This record gives sequence, C-alpha cells and structure tokens, in this order.
Amino acid sequence: MEIIGEKINTTRKDVGKAVRERDAAFIEDLARKQAEGGATYLDVNSGLALYPEEEIEDFAWLVPLVQQVVNLPLCIDSGRVQPIEAALKLHRGKAMINSVNGDQAKMEEIFPLVKKYGCRVIALTSSSEGGIPATSGERLKMAEAIAMAAQQYGIPLADIYFDPLVMTLSTQHGNGVLFLETLRGIKKNLGEAKTVSGLSNISFGLPKRRLLNQAFLLLALGCGMDAAILDPTDKALMAMIRAGEALMGKDPFCAKYIGAFREGRLDA
Amino acid sequence: MEIIGEKINTTRKDVGKAVRERDAAFIEDLARKQAEGGATYLDVNSGLALYPEEEIEDFAWLVPLVQQVVNLPLCIDSGRVQPIEAALKLHRGKAMINSVNGDQAKMEEIFPLVKKYGCRVIALTSSSEGGIPATSGERLKMAEAIAMAAQQYGIPLADIYFDPLVMTLSTQHGNGVLFLETLRGIKKNLGEAKTVSGLSNISFGLPKRRLLNQAFLLLALGCGMDAAILDPTDKALMAMIRAGEALMGKDPFCAKYIGAFREGRLDA
Repeated sequence: MEIIGEKINTTRKDVGKAVRERDAAFIEDLARKQAEGGATYLDVNSGLALYPEEEIEDFAWLVPLVQQVVNLPLCIDSGRVQPIEAALKLHRGKAMINSVNGDQAKMEEIFPLVKKYGCRVIALTSSSEGGIPATSGERLKMAEAIAMAAQQYGIPLADIYFDPLVMTLSTQHGNGVLFLETLRGIKKNLGEAKTVSGLSNISFGLPKRRLLNQAFLLLALGCGMDAAILDPTDKALMAMIRAGEALMGKDPFCAKYIGAFREGRLDA
Repeated sequence: MEIIGEKINTTRKDVGKAVRERDAAFIEDLARKQAEGGATYLDVNSGLALYPEEEIEDFAWLVPLVQQVVNLPLCIDSGRVQPIEAALKLHRGKAMINSVNGDQAKMEEIFPLVKKYGCRVIALTSSSEGGIPATSGERLKMAEAIAMAAQQYGIPLADIYFDPLVMTLSTQHGNGVLFLETLRGIKKNLGEAKTVSGLSNISFGLPKRRLLNQAFLLLALGCGMDAAILDPTDKALMAMIRAGEALMGKDPFCAKYIGAFREGRLDA
C-alpha cells in the first residue's frame, strides 16, 4: 500500500517554526525519518501561510529540499491552486495533489493541473455545499460524479485516490462501518480507482487512540484500501501494515515482511 | 465476538500433567485467568487420553470442575463421540462441540448429540477422504453440504460455527486471502450460520507470529468472523479484538472498549 508520510505540515508547531526559519536540517531529518520508516509519498503542507505568495515561497523552498534528501514523490497539500502549481513545476516524478472534492469550481481548478503534470489526486467524497454525505450510498454517488468529471479531462481513473472520509467513532458507533462500506463500494463500482484515508479522526475522543488507529488501518486494508496518510515513524503501525499486506497476499513469499523483520522494523 | 479460550488442552505438557494428577488448583487457575481475559467459552480437550474410558473420566472430572469456577459454557473438544456425550451430560448451559466435518459417519455421530443437548457445533469445511479443499468455492460447497445435513436433524443454522480452515502463509502467500474469501462466502451464502477459526496456523514458520496473528484476527473480524479459538490471556490480542469490535459497530457507545480501558485491559 502507498504510505503517505504526514509529518511535513506547518500546522505542527515545530514544523511551522522550521519552515518560517528555513531550518533545512529539521525538514531534511523529518523527510529522511519518514522515508526510512517506509513512506512511499511525503505530504508537504504549508497551510500556515496566510497569503498565496508566502505559500508559493514555502513550497519553492520545501519541494526541492525534500526531494534532494529522499528519492520520493510528494503529495502537494494545499487549498490554493497557485501554490499547488508552483510546487508541481519544481517537482520531480509523479506527484499527488491533496485534494479535490465534488465542487465544480474545485474540479475546474485542480483537474487541469492533474492532466498537465500527469499526477495523481486525492478526491474527497464531499462538497462545500453538501458537506460530508451521511450515507455510504451518497458518498459513492459523489465519487462517481467526480470520476465522470475527471474523465472529461482525460485523467485515468487509476490516478484518482478517493477518500471515503473517516468520522469520529465516539460520536456515532456506526462511523467505522460507514467508512468501510464506502471504501468497499468505491473499489467495487469504480474499477481501477484507488482509495486513501487519514487514520486519526476515527479515534478522536477515545482512549488508546494508537490501538484503534492500528485496528482501523487493518480493517481498511482488508477492504482494499490502497493508500494511507499516516506517521511512518510509528513502528507499531508500520509493523501492522507489513503484517496486513502479507496476509492479504500482497507480499509474495512474505519477502517484504521478512525483510522488515531482519531490519528490526517489526519490533514495536 | 465469541472468544473460545484454548488453554485447557492436555497436549500442552503442563495441562496434561495437571489432568493426569487431578491437580484441581492448576486447572481452576487456568479457567479463571481465561475468563478474566475475556473468554466467553472455554475449550476443554483431553486428547492425550489413550482410551475412550480414560477420556470419559477426564471429562467427568474437568467439566464440573471448570464450570464450578467460571460461569461459562464449554467447548467440548474431542475426536470421540462417547467422551463428548459423557461431557454433555454433565454440562450446564449451551455447550459447543468441537468438531464435526463433512464425513457422513462423523455427522451421523455428532449431529444427534447437537440436537439432543441443544448445543452448538464447530464444523470444519473438510473431510477425511477429500482433505482440505484447495479452493474457497469447494470449501463453501462443503459447508453447504454440512448445513443441509444438519437441517435434516433439525439443527438451527445459527448453532453451526463453520471453520474456513487456516493454512500456513509461509507455504503459500495466497492462504490468507483464501481463508478470508471462504469466510465471506459462508457469511453471504449461509445466512444465520456462524464462523470460527483458530489463529496460530497462519503464522507458522514466520517471525513475529503474535503480530501476524493479531493482524489476521482483525482481517477476519472485518469479514464477519463470529468466534475465535485463542489465548484470552494474551492482552495485546484481546485489546485488538476490543478495538476491532468497536470499529465494526458491534460495541454500542464503545462501552465495552471504554470499560476494558478503565480496567487496564487495553494496556498490552
């Protein structure tokens, strides 16, 4: 599964400070550690920037810096289109854009970039007007509408990572099942389309959040989730992923699992 | 999910010795610890006994002893019909028989007991002649044949726990998926029928077996597994089950999960 490392995000206090102060060593270290943990993408977010110009400058500094240290593609995480394009211009390899949703205006902004730069895109199954649909059926319809729109731009379905949207279990005990149902529906109805999710929302407000996040990731993996946004330096979580991939038949001869064991990466 | 505690089994050296020597304190302790860990059934196996008479005597000692200490039903685990019936005669509550399979002779022995004593039964999706079928389709057919036969004895489908049969991942990396497919098929095709499995076979020959067993249990839970034969004194495993149940919407208001946390049972 694709592991999108979540740590280079300026809403984290220490990262925000490092970006403001152009502390290259700090960011390089964060990139290196996530790569060593097993990340296959690194999310880069400078959402703290107040103005687009500032965010563009942040990305202009961050993108080459991170890609110089680790040989990984990046997940360009921003709500504004200009900084995204600025980052894509500097990016080497197949980037991912985080994110589009069901809004017409958003799709008209983002899909041309996806096409032009041949990248992947995370698509939230929600919209500004409708919010997050309450049922898996409605979220699925949203995903289908987004897939249709993307097709008009000539974007392959295989490059779209749909996010079924995790909501907190503590507020509604059916929220785990709702997520998994949506995930299964997308995998079933949308052929080559991929699925992605963050993890931590599910456990908000409950004790032993890491335990819940681990269990949730495995349940999602069992339903065919293709990518996850998470902390790849969390050894217990990454060990669980390696075990889950082996069990799901995605690790021929358990080679990756055994390799991780030999490198001490299964010791949580 | 039903947790069938596996520890009272005379093929374990210390348990065999305790049963031979009628060491009540040892067995009582084993029963109590499994109940405290979260077992809802306790498996009782005296397979070390050479003769049926010996096994009958063992069960006659074990069944009342265990049920006096813990208020749990037992899973009567034997390959012989006379000891099973001897145990059922002494058993209080709804016992489970471990196990029947697709053999005609076996079903003719076991199903009358299931009916007479109103108990549950574990049904392996295999037979003596055919062994373990290589595909999920064949295992599913075996399950359907067993379900049909049970119906003729008036046994409710809801009392049959089908075992899709776990095989070692290290010999064939598709064995995890094969198991999960069979499990899903049984839940889909056989309505009220239940599913059960042991865990540890999956990880045989691989490093970090407990990690694989935990991950496997969660994947199975995600596919609707109703019961598992395991060591309920394994805190990490039981914590994972509590998390999985909450995520699968089987724990209203996460009450069981939060209760387990408060009692310190989520600290692995």
